[in-house]
Amino acid sequence: MLDALAHVGRDPVTGGYVRDAWSDADLELRAWFAGESARRGLDLTEDRNGNLWAWWGDPAGEPGVATGSHLDSVRQGGAYDGPLGVVSAFSALDLLRERGFRPRRALAVVCFTDEEGARFGVPCVGSRLLTGAMTPERALGLTDDRGDTLADVLTRAGRDPRALGPDPETLARVGAFVELHVEQGRALAALDRPVGVGRSIWPHGRWRFDLRGRADHAGTTRLADRDDPMLLLARLVQAAREAAVRHEALATVGKVLVTPNNANAVPGHVAAWLDARGPDEESVRALVREVVALLSEPDARALSGSDLLAGAPGEPARRVEVREESWTPLVEFDRDLRERIARAVEGTAGQESGQATGRTAGQVPGETAGQTSGQTAGQTSGRVAASGAGRVPVLATGAGHDAGILAAAGVRAAMLFVRNPTGVSHSPEEHAEEADCRAGVIALADVLEELCR
Amino acid sequence: MLDALAHVGRDPVTGGYVRDAWSDADLELRAWFAGESARRGLDLTEDRNGNLWAWWGDPAGEPGVATGSHLDSVRQGGAYDGPLGVVSAFSALDLLRERGFRPRRALAVVCFTDEEGARFGVPCVGSRLLTGAMTPERALGLTDDRGDTLADVLTRAGRDPRALGPDPETLARVGAFVELHVEQGRALAALDRPVGVGRSIWPHGRWRFDLRGRADHAGTTRLADRDDPMLLLARLVQAAREAAVRHEALATVGKVLVTPNNANAVPGHVAAWLDARGPDEESVRALVREVVALLSEPDARALSGSDLLAGAPGEPARRVEVREESWTPLVEFDRDLRERIARAVEGTAGQESGQATGRTAGQVPGETAGQTSGQTAGQTSGRVAASGAGRVPVLATGAGHDAGILAAAGVRAAMLFVRNPTGVSHSPEEHAEEADCRAGVIALADVLEELCR
Repeated sequence: MLDALAHVGRDPVTGGYVRDAWSDADLELRAWFAGESARRGLDLTEDRNGNLWAWWGDPAGEPGVATGSHLDSVRQGGAYDGPLGVVSAFSALDLLRERGFRPRRALAVVCFTDEEGARFGVPCVGSRLLTGAMTPERALGLTDDRGDTLADVLTRAGRDPRALGPDPETLARVGAFVELHVEQGRALAALDRPVGVGRSIWPHGRWRFDLRGRADHAGTTRLADRDDPMLLLARLVQAAREAAVRHEALATVGKVLVTPNNANAVPGHVAAWLDARGPDEESVRALVREVVALLSEPDARALSGSDLLAGAPGEPARRVEVREESWTPLVEFDRDLRERIARAVEGTAGQESGQATGRTAGQVPGETAGQTSGQTAGQTSGRVAASGAGRVPVLATGAGHDAGILAAAGVRAAMLFVRNPTGVSHSPEEHAEEADCRAGVIALADVLEELCR
Repeated sequence: MLDALAHVGRDPVTGGYVRDAWSDADLELRAWFAGESARRGLDLTEDRNGNLWAWWGDPAGEPGVATGSHLDSVRQGGAYDGPLGVVSAFSALDLLRERGFRPRRALAVVCFTDEEGARFGVPCVGSRLLTGAMTPERALGLTDDRGDTLADVLTRAGRDPRALGPDPETLARVGAFVELHVEQGRALAALDRPVGVGRSIWPHGRWRFDLRGRADHAGTTRLADRDDPMLLLARLVQAAREAAVRHEALATVGKVLVTPNNANAVPGHVAAWLDARGPDEESVRALVREVVALLSEPDARALSGSDLLAGAPGEPARRVEVREESWTPLVEFDRDLRERIARAVEGTAGQESGQATGRTAGQVPGETAGQTSGQTAGQTSGRVAASGAGRVPVLATGAGHDAGILAAAGVRAAMLFVRNPTGVSHSPEEHAEEADCRAGVIALADVLEELCR
């Protein structure tokens, strides 16, 4: 099924995918989803926030079980982040039907809208609106690079922007949510395991730094007369990396906008975004505090080469403005669901290796409990610990997911990760082997069967 | 006259001007130029490279004298850089007519095309093509941010791209060129003088740095697994500033493009432009060499956080590619012309201060030869020395100008600078007082009168 999507939104030069929410590529992917749903005789509904639900059975009485992910992409992303979870959900449903399984609880394949936030800068817009984690006012006012608001874009796509908002009715149908995702690190590769279980999502946030100086002619303004925010950017980038090392956390400056961005002009303004994540909330908060402090007076004054502005020591310079754009606390996935998934993965591993016939046994070749009960070295975003079952890798991840948004809203949710040989993510080099994807589908089908029985 | 242009290409939010070559704003400015030419009964011609010449008299026999500047702007620039020279040229011509002067040599007001290079990245395209300093092949292949080539843009503006190229016929009509320009530093303000004379243009160049890494997920890629070119950018910015201080030169990183420029992705590529200028060629070359060396292996390897790539010590890392986009050697303006301008400025100063009646005398209040015979402190781009006349500030500038291109091609050329109180340039804050502009026009008219007599 992934092959059917290979052409959608693919940059012919880089091979990377550009699948912004509500773009032509996204609409094509949504049409594909509708087609897959219809082919299986599922009941397709688009909720008021644009999330797609393809139901097998009616969740009106007892809440059902949902599985899926998203189809949008970061810009220049890979083919697996998102689509693998949706395709695996359809495949797991197919497998359950092949097995002749008749679910007692309704089962849905779901596609969440705008998980990556590539277009409007805020991730998980569909699930955040659904759960009320984001107000419709804020969502509708988000603008893309062209200055179009989400409201404009929805209207153009034939949707009613006024419909956006918390949707307890849709949420009530979801008794449990299982999201399968390509791993975004190398933990499974290091352990030589095809599938792992998600334990938690690291707390993470995004901060916008507005670094202000004075635009000047590059050829005529003495160094001493300059107030150059590019020097502040250099300090920000280095301070963020140093603080991340200190706190065994992650910090990234991945987006920078320079104004006027002329080669022969000292910039007047540099906007930079700091993405920070870590194993606990206090370490992330401390990291950001330290970066801000390093850009404070009198350092910033000296750094930008100007002594024109004053400011109290220890406070950020007036020319440095920091705004928290998003903050997501630590999310732990449902323990019971995690253990069910772990048992399913363990069973699959047994099946795959041919050493067991059931779905509950099998020592995986080349692995011992000792190997998986520790943590991988350093501040990995894929800390691995022993699962409840003692054998399946359990991962904490630094990436946000719709499953995390649902879990934070009290929905019973958990995740499966499929091995990514290089660990590269958000890049065309992202990859998963077909055998590993199959193992993921089997484990997913097994846990869905158990949940819907 | 400047007021008539105040609205053209003005950003309503910032107040800055955006007047890209061949944009609607530029075409409106060119139409204004044609109107001013017609109103004065001048003979307007557009040469094969799009430069506009409004002739008073016929330069067919003896070469004439040209004065003017350009009407395009850097993005978010000010109202004076370029237009002041064109408006002053028309005003000086008007003043000569008021005086009843009849030129023996023909006199032209000129507007050069695309001086700033805001759209296609290369400055002085009109004068470079005219003199043969740039080939038409290179010019036509230049692309703007939308990917349109100069050839596309010219065709759309109703011009024939095949006409571009060296134009010795037009050049032969120019026996001398005098360009008046708003000062782009604070040298005149520091000396309390309204007008100065240009002595030389610093050697300057532009280098493009392609910093390559590997795009990765910001939330899941361990620091140790990253190859983050943003860290190289930070080093580049700091190294450039440090080297500029060492060499008493200027270095600016004013333009940066990040790919994919997502807040939640480690960038895969950062392109940054280094603009470097200095009092002599060797110091600029040394500055650039030192910056490149600081980005070389094994430093770059350590900086980007990766040990995946190898490279010989001292050589730039394979992930760092440096390309010289432009290089302009030191240009000295014509000595005789400089001295004539200095005498004219001196005379004007006397007239303005009311202490002299002719155009040849007058000690300017508050100034002594001692004040102007030294250099201003530090690595100013407006080094000030005593003129031949001993009293008028003579400035070397770090900015490129069409007068510099013509001088390098052997045309007798020189410049006048009008005081800019704050020294701010390439910014909406750029300014010149009306009295100073008037002093500039009088001095310009005086020197033109002398040259055309």
